[in-house]
Order: sequence, then C-alpha cells, then structure tokens
Amino acid sequence: MLTLYYAKGTAALAAHIVLEEAKADYKAQLIDFSKMEQQSPEYLATNPKGRVPTLKTPQGLLTETPAILAYIAQTHPNVNLAPKDPFEFATAQAFNIYLAATVHVAHAHKMRGHRWSDDPDAHKSMTAKVTGNMAECARMIEVHYFKGPWVLGNTYSICDPYLFTVSQWMTADGVNLDEFPIIKEHSEAMKKRAAVQRVMELHE
Amino acid sequence: MLTLYYAKGTAALAAHIVLEEAKADYKAQLIDFSKMEQQSPEYLATNPKGRVPTLKTPQGLLTETPAILAYIAQTHPNVNLAPKDPFEFATAQAFNIYLAATVHVAHAHKMRGHRWSDDPDAHKSMTAKVTGNMAECARMIEVHYFKGPWVLGNTYSICDPYLFTVSQWMTADGVNLDEFPIIKEHSEAMKKRAAVQRVMELHE
Ligand SMILES: N[C@@H](CCC(=O)N[C@@H](CS)C(=O)NCC(=O)O)C(=O)O
Ligand SMILES: N[C@@H](CCC(=O)N[C@@H](CS)C(=O)NCC(=O)O)C(=O)O
Repeated sequence: MLTLYYAKGTAALAAHIVLEEAKADYKAQLIDFSKMEQQSPEYLATNPKGRVPTLKTPQGLLTETPAILAYIAQTHPNVNLAPKDPFEFATAQAFNIYLAATVHVAHAHKMRGHRWSDDPDAHKSMTAKVTGNMAECARMIEVHYFKGPWVLGNTYSICDPYLFTVSQWMTADGVNLDEFPIIKEHSEAMKKRAAVQRVMELHE
Repeated sequence: MLTLYYAKGTAALAAHIVLEEAKADYKAQLIDFSKMEQQSPEYLATNPKGRVPTLKTPQGLLTETPAILAYIAQTHPNVNLAPKDPFEFATAQAFNIYLAATVHVAHAHKMRGHRWSDDPDAHKSMTAKVTGNMAECARMIEVHYFKGPWVLGNTYSICDPYLFTVSQWMTADGVNLDEFPIIKEHSEAMKKRAAVQRVMELHE
C-alpha cells in the first residue's frame, strides 16, 4: 500500500495520475495549503522540505516528482509507463527533470518569490516575468522535446501526466495555449483519459 | 564513445567525475562561457537550452544532470554507481533532483537573476539571499539525507560527485563549511579520489 501526500493544483497531480494509470494500491492524503499543513510538525516528519508530493512506500518515504514517477513506473512494470532501455529512460527522466528544475521553478516565481528574495518589489518584478518564461518553456517543449502524440512518441508514459500538470500552470500563468497547439492538444487528450478524470475531481 | 560538453566550475563537473569513476570511453569538450559559446548556433543545435552538461551518446543527446548521471551508471553496471532496486534508485534520484531543482536553483540566483526578473535591484536582493539559502540546503542535506560515509551510506554512488560539485558552490557562495562538518569531510574525501583529481585539473 502506497500513500500519496498531495495538495490541490500542485506538482502532486502528476504522481496522482500516474498512480491511477498504474492501477496502484494507494490512498491519497490531502495536505491543506490554506491551513499551511505542509509546515505542520507531522508533515515535516514525513517530508522535512515541507513540500508535496511525498510518496510513502513499504520501504520508506520518497520525494521529488521525477523520482516518484519513475518509482511508480518501475514497481508496476506491466503498465509500461517508463522505458527500460537506459538511453530511453534517461530521455524520459531528462524531460521530467527539465519540468522540475526549470519549468516548475519558473512557475514558482509567481507566488513563491520570498524563497529567493526578501524584497516585495523584487517579488513583483519576478511575477511580471512568469508569463514570458512559461511561454518560452512551452516553446522549448513543442519545438525540441515533444515527439507526439505523447511526449515520448507513440507510447504514453510518466512524462505525460507531468506535462499535463505543468500545462495547467501555463494557462493559470497567463500563457495562451492557442499559441502552443501541440501542448493544447496534448492537454485535451489527457482530459479524456479515465485516470485523469478520476483524479481531477480531487484537485478542484 | 561518449562526449561530455562541459564548462569549468559548473554542474558538468558531476558528470565529468562520474565518467572517470565509470572508466567510460569518453572525451570532454569545453564550452567557453567567457565567450558565450553556450549560445553559439553549433552548441544550441546540441542543446537548445544553451546549458551544460550535455552528453552525446551513440543513441543521441542527453541533458539534465540527474538523468545523465543515472545513464552513465546504468550503462556501466559493473562499477555499481547507482542502486538497482527501484526504491533505492528513487532515493538516489530524489537526492540528485533536490540538488538540481532546489540547490542548483538557489545558487543560480547569485549570477543568473536575469532569468527570473528584469529589475537590477531585484537581482541584488536575490544575490543577498544566496548564502542563507545555500546554508539552509546544507543543513537539510546534513540533517535529513546524508547517510555517511557516502551520501547513500557505505556505497559510493552518482550522488557523491554531484554533492561535491554543489559543496564547491556553497563555499563560493559564502557558506562556511566549518559549520557543516559532514559536507566538509565528504568534500575532503572526494578530493582524495584519483578520478576527482584527474578531472579537477580541467575545471580550474
Ligand atoms: N522539486 C519538488 C518541488 C515540490 C514543490 O515545490 N511543491 C510545491 C507545490 S507545487 C509545494 O509543496 N509548495 C509548498 C510551499 O512552498 O510551502 C518536486 O519536483 O516534487
Ligand atoms: N537543470 C540543468 C541545469 C544546467 C545549468 O543550468 N547549467 C549552467 C551551469 S551550472 C549553465 O549551463 N548555464 C549557462 C547559462 O545560463 O548561460 C542540469 O541539472 O543539468
């Protein structure tokens, strides 16, 4: 039995969808950000970084979205959610780590500027740059990384729920997805999947 | 034959050390940041993100440090640089992705503030917060993640060259490693390794 600690509209959505796709035996535990539960002593004992997602497994706790997604795929090999060949696996991981280390970080500058500056004016200037940065990331993904119809090509993988999660932030951050038809179409294809529909209800 | 595209003192140091440790058949190609070679048309054809490291493999190009390190380990399994069990592998990846998505990003706010704000005053306020943020990351690693004597415990792995790389940035960013004796000792143990010594010459 796995437990996913998640908050609505966060990176945890990706892990949540992958657990559904994998038909994993799991439960989802909501961490309420409006009550700052991510900083409660109980949650900090689970994830000292005070972030979601965290995945509790029979062997221990895991953090960091790309690591969690790969773990779910590798422990549910029949569902074929991650490539097995080392180069193909690294390609999938590189895509997901770009989302974590560049795209997620670009998005976080809208609301979490206090992580990197103590100056309220600086936070405003960071927020002002988020739409442009997220659009640049969308362009990078469309032009250089997305193979189609899924991220890695013909096979649906752990990259797709993560791109879907990030594409929702792009919209919220003011990017017009009409300018990025590949990502828009991908997002629409994702919304038709039963696993996505089951999970989205919990994130609204 | 592999080719590592690297620049001095960057995240590419981690991949460089891992290639040496794995006794990989590789060559290293310097990208000169002082000449902005990372933005040359030739290099952008290799890595459209304009960053290092990039690893050229017989199957194609790879980016993103944690993906590259895992690829080198998995294609040189005899050297045993990454765990094979999915949970242990995910633990290693989570450590490395924390370095990429949080610690490297904290460090980048010293010199690369223009990525997230167009306001020179904001850049100053970001730079001012870097020492504190890097010290907080050092504390997080020492208290919660470092098992000792190596990152994952008794077995040296792909996490160690990456922590070593980041610990050099910590020092450069004004963190006094005397306050973080575990990381300091780790760094000294790394400097004694032949693979590290061979590579460091090229990064000075
Ligand atoms: N690198 C982590 C980032 C996780 C992260 O920052 N999650 C955000 C939500 S999207 C969070 O928990 N923020 C809570 C806070 O900053 O208090 C990952 O990829 O999982
Ligand atoms: N997420 C990437 C980050 C790579 C990165 O940002 N590298 C820096 C050097 S440490 C770079 O190439 N910067 C060049 C630039 O910003 O122009 C990774 O983990 O490999």
